[in-house]
Amino acid sequence: MAASILVRRCQMWTPSKLPTGYHRKALNTQMGSAAMYQLKKKDTQLLKRQIPSGISHMTSRSLHLTLLCFQEVMLTSERYQVQRFPFAHVSDRDLSFFERLMPGRVMTDADELKPFNVDWLKTVRGCSKVLLKPRTTMEISEVLRYCSERNLAVNPQGGNTCLVGGSVPVFDEIILSTALMNQIISFDTVSGILVCQAGCILENLNQYLEQLDFIMPLDLAAKGSCHIGGNVATNAGGLRLLRYGSLRGTVLGLEVVLADGSILNCLTSLRKDNTGYDLKQLFIGSEGTLGIVTAVSILCPRKPKAVNLAFLGCPGFSQVLRTFTTCKGMLGEILSAYEFMDNECMKLVKGHLKLVNPVAESPFYILVETSGSNSVHDEEKLSNFLDHVMTSNLVTDGTLASDDKKIKMLWALRERITEALTCEGYVYKYDISLPVEKIYDLVTDMRTKLGRSAKNVVGYGHLGDGNLHLNITAESYSHSLLEAIEPYVYEWTSQYRGSISAEHGLGFKKKHFIHYSKPQEAVLLMQQFKAMLDPKGILNPYKTLPVKSE
Amino acid sequence: MAASILVRRCQMWTPSKLPTGYHRKALNTQMGSAAMYQLKKKDTQLLKRQIPSGISHMTSRSLHLTLLCFQEVMLTSERYQVQRFPFAHVSDRDLSFFERLMPGRVMTDADELKPFNVDWLKTVRGCSKVLLKPRTTMEISEVLRYCSERNLAVNPQGGNTCLVGGSVPVFDEIILSTALMNQIISFDTVSGILVCQAGCILENLNQYLEQLDFIMPLDLAAKGSCHIGGNVATNAGGLRLLRYGSLRGTVLGLEVVLADGSILNCLTSLRKDNTGYDLKQLFIGSEGTLGIVTAVSILCPRKPKAVNLAFLGCPGFSQVLRTFTTCKGMLGEILSAYEFMDNECMKLVKGHLKLVNPVAESPFYILVETSGSNSVHDEEKLSNFLDHVMTSNLVTDGTLASDDKKIKMLWALRERITEALTCEGYVYKYDISLPVEKIYDLVTDMRTKLGRSAKNVVGYGHLGDGNLHLNITAESYSHSLLEAIEPYVYEWTSQYRGSISAEHGLGFKKKHFIHYSKPQEAVLLMQQFKAMLDPKGILNPYKTLPVKSE
Repeated sequence: MAASILVRRCQMWTPSKLPTGYHRKALNTQMGSAAMYQLKKKDTQLLKRQIPSGISHMTSRSLHLTLLCFQEVMLTSERYQVQRFPFAHVSDRDLSFFERLMPGRVMTDADELKPFNVDWLKTVRGCSKVLLKPRTTMEISEVLRYCSERNLAVNPQGGNTCLVGGSVPVFDEIILSTALMNQIISFDTVSGILVCQAGCILENLNQYLEQLDFIMPLDLAAKGSCHIGGNVATNAGGLRLLRYGSLRGTVLGLEVVLADGSILNCLTSLRKDNTGYDLKQLFIGSEGTLGIVTAVSILCPRKPKAVNLAFLGCPGFSQVLRTFTTCKGMLGEILSAYEFMDNECMKLVKGHLKLVNPVAESPFYILVETSGSNSVHDEEKLSNFLDHVMTSNLVTDGTLASDDKKIKMLWALRERITEALTCEGYVYKYDISLPVEKIYDLVTDMRTKLGRSAKNVVGYGHLGDGNLHLNITAESYSHSLLEAIEPYVYEWTSQYRGSISAEHGLGFKKKHFIHYSKPQEAVLLMQQFKAMLDPKGILNPYKTLPVKSE
Repeated sequence: MAASILVRRCQMWTPSKLPTGYHRKALNTQMGSAAMYQLKKKDTQLLKRQIPSGISHMTSRSLHLTLLCFQEVMLTSERYQVQRFPFAHVSDRDLSFFERLMPGRVMTDADELKPFNVDWLKTVRGCSKVLLKPRTTMEISEVLRYCSERNLAVNPQGGNTCLVGGSVPVFDEIILSTALMNQIISFDTVSGILVCQAGCILENLNQYLEQLDFIMPLDLAAKGSCHIGGNVATNAGGLRLLRYGSLRGTVLGLEVVLADGSILNCLTSLRKDNTGYDLKQLFIGSEGTLGIVTAVSILCPRKPKAVNLAFLGCPGFSQVLRTFTTCKGMLGEILSAYEFMDNECMKLVKGHLKLVNPVAESPFYILVETSGSNSVHDEEKLSNFLDHVMTSNLVTDGTLASDDKKIKMLWALRERITEALTCEGYVYKYDISLPVEKIYDLVTDMRTKLGRSAKNVVGYGHLGDGNLHLNITAESYSHSLLEAIEPYVYEWTSQYRGSISAEHGLGFKKKHFIHYSKPQEAVLLMQQFKAMLDPKGILNPYKTLPVKSE
């Protein structure tokens, strides 16, 4: 019994060492013979040996926070030479008001506030003196009504996993945390519609749903810390977008508190609703600058009955692209992720996190995930696909997992790149959308341009969505290196009509570069919306949009 | 050879006449034995006999227009007692300007204008005296700049297939037709992204894409006439939403001309772009009241390698629901449509359009469509599902088609209900979103309430999306019948937190009922957006939103 479980848990093949015919047989025979079992058992043991048991899978960025020392990060206002807008300063009278409104949930201790003033990447730092932890929408409404009257700036904060400096204050904005707004309001097992408060942690929601045979329609490396409200506010993409589409399609309703404290209740649970303009869309991806998302209604897919993950080694980027086209044709509706990473990424996760490369060293690696309702059908499709890409030399080595634990181990290689990068020193992060065939040219071009001035130039990302994560590391922040990268990287992207922010948003760091992806008329219109919804500009100031004078 | 083609083209089973074992075998054996072939051939012939060859499949509403006589429809302004807003009247000088701008494309002949002043349902009528046929975005920009300065109202019009009076003038608004803006700008076979002008007809786009092995992500009964720009402007839903999601996820970019003539170019072709607010979303579903969509960038799925359609008879609505739940579990990722219709609908398409019911008469009928990448796998899944629902008596009779022609014939039974209804006289149309378990209660409740004052009360729709099309017919329009239906139907819907317009929009007919689905704060915000983007209110006036004084 234990043995048969092992058989299903992990399959591995090393076709370079096996005759092709045997390899094909191994892939095609799902309920295999004794010989087959022998092979799989051996391979399973091999994989077990390769991935040290002491290194557990870590998805939570919060855990990482505790591992990194809190070295002092330069104040954003100093590093970027920002002028404070003329907001009021928080007074003792203001603190008394907040304390009356939410007793015991007003944090003012400077040390306690530290992690909420600094971003996860340790690149930007504010100096807020107060953090509020509301539990209800009404409390947020009261806070904003008060702040609006008092002209106090507010920085909404979810899991603080933003990678563009959108979730921490630039100066002394009041931090409004959704951490205690973590209640599930309802879940309908017929329609698959979940309604919950904004502060629910993505991974917790997914675990809750899995028990009911559903999953969240999005999955991110930051899932252990990020809040669903933050996901919506930043229009998070992630690993499942290829299969389940963007939040613009899956989010069915929102409850939002506007800058003046009024509550906009569009928290419907309907798949279709064409009664007037779809206001919620304006708040999705607005990074807390137009309103604060307090509750979310979202359509959740059924938990797939069968999930398989292939981790493949690829000899070049053109093979990565051809494998993708083949994959879309042969795996069709069961394809749920197509990710890539270069060998430089692999070196980082091996070096810093002690993860093990389960295949032979290759210039590129691909993760192909399938999710379907029939394991036999899925494995047959996957087997045909793998057979094809191996025999046509698109892929040179690979390992296949269908067991949850092994799948997570393989995913860690891709998901923990961000974490490994932070161990290098300072990270210059770029999150670019480009036509797929152009994606890696930017990495090689940048590598050539920067030469030895950068420690590392690596590329990985959601190839299926045309989304490259270009990361450049250096021992520490250097203004001259930044100038060598920007605006060159944005000009390059703009030349191919790409987006300078595919999924991370603009936050604080990218707002001045919006013109590389949006025409002037569009930016002006956005500024008009901002002025209409938040006339005093108190919501997440210094973020997303350049102010008209900038 | 001919025989083997027949085998693949159509399969039919009548399990009430066949032992279950035989039925199971018939469905499971795809490359069947001689005995199997005998059965299928017989069934194919049976289906051929049942669907008269003289009745061809008609998907185009434009064809229907020519069949109906142009009986005089009462003027909207008279029937609904509307007051004209103080717009300017079109002068000879205006006509000269338009004629100079687009020579030979300014239509002023009253007879020629008739079909553009009346909606497809023959329920509302305007009295516009001029129709313009621009070819380019620049021409639309010039027209709007001029109209804005002159305070002339404009009615954008695509295929004029709107069912809520949104696409025809209420008074003498200038009709701005996108009929000549029918160019495909680009199609990328790697990404599947299509960029085209707004006036492209949906069916033409789909035919173009099919040659390249792709399809449009939406499909409507009106596909033969409706324009993609109109689809976007009304956030059209349709038959494929269950599988490919809403336009909010598949539309990647838009080009829009604003009321003052300025052009907003957000026509990007990126799967992901988080640079600022997603302005295009505001125009999706705004029914031409905020801007005129002139070009669309849309993500198109691969053409499925295998499509199957099961047409099933069901003994009751609870069985329709249970079959749906079973279906979602057993067909999973290949399920592409789940539609239902009641027997009253069947009687109408049989009576008026001479279509033939291919299964035994039942209280309800279901259409289950699968689309996948492997015909053997799909048929096996479908076979297991059908076996299950037949043996558990959820379904009492059915027919299965995998051949394109037969699939179209079966779809016609569902798609042509709207057309059959118009042959009854006047149609009161309601397009409701409700929790699925409540959907049919509204139909039976309404049937009881109206008794003999209505000719027919029928229900059909996209059950998979919780979307009911409730239709009530009478010989001719009657104000007292309308008062018996409204606002009762909206109150009923509101009670279950449904939407009073799932996919048709609000147009002219439903705008006053927006409060049944949206809170006051949301409506006020919509009115502010309208005032900001179209301060003179010249774009599609009298539509979508009640004006503040109403």
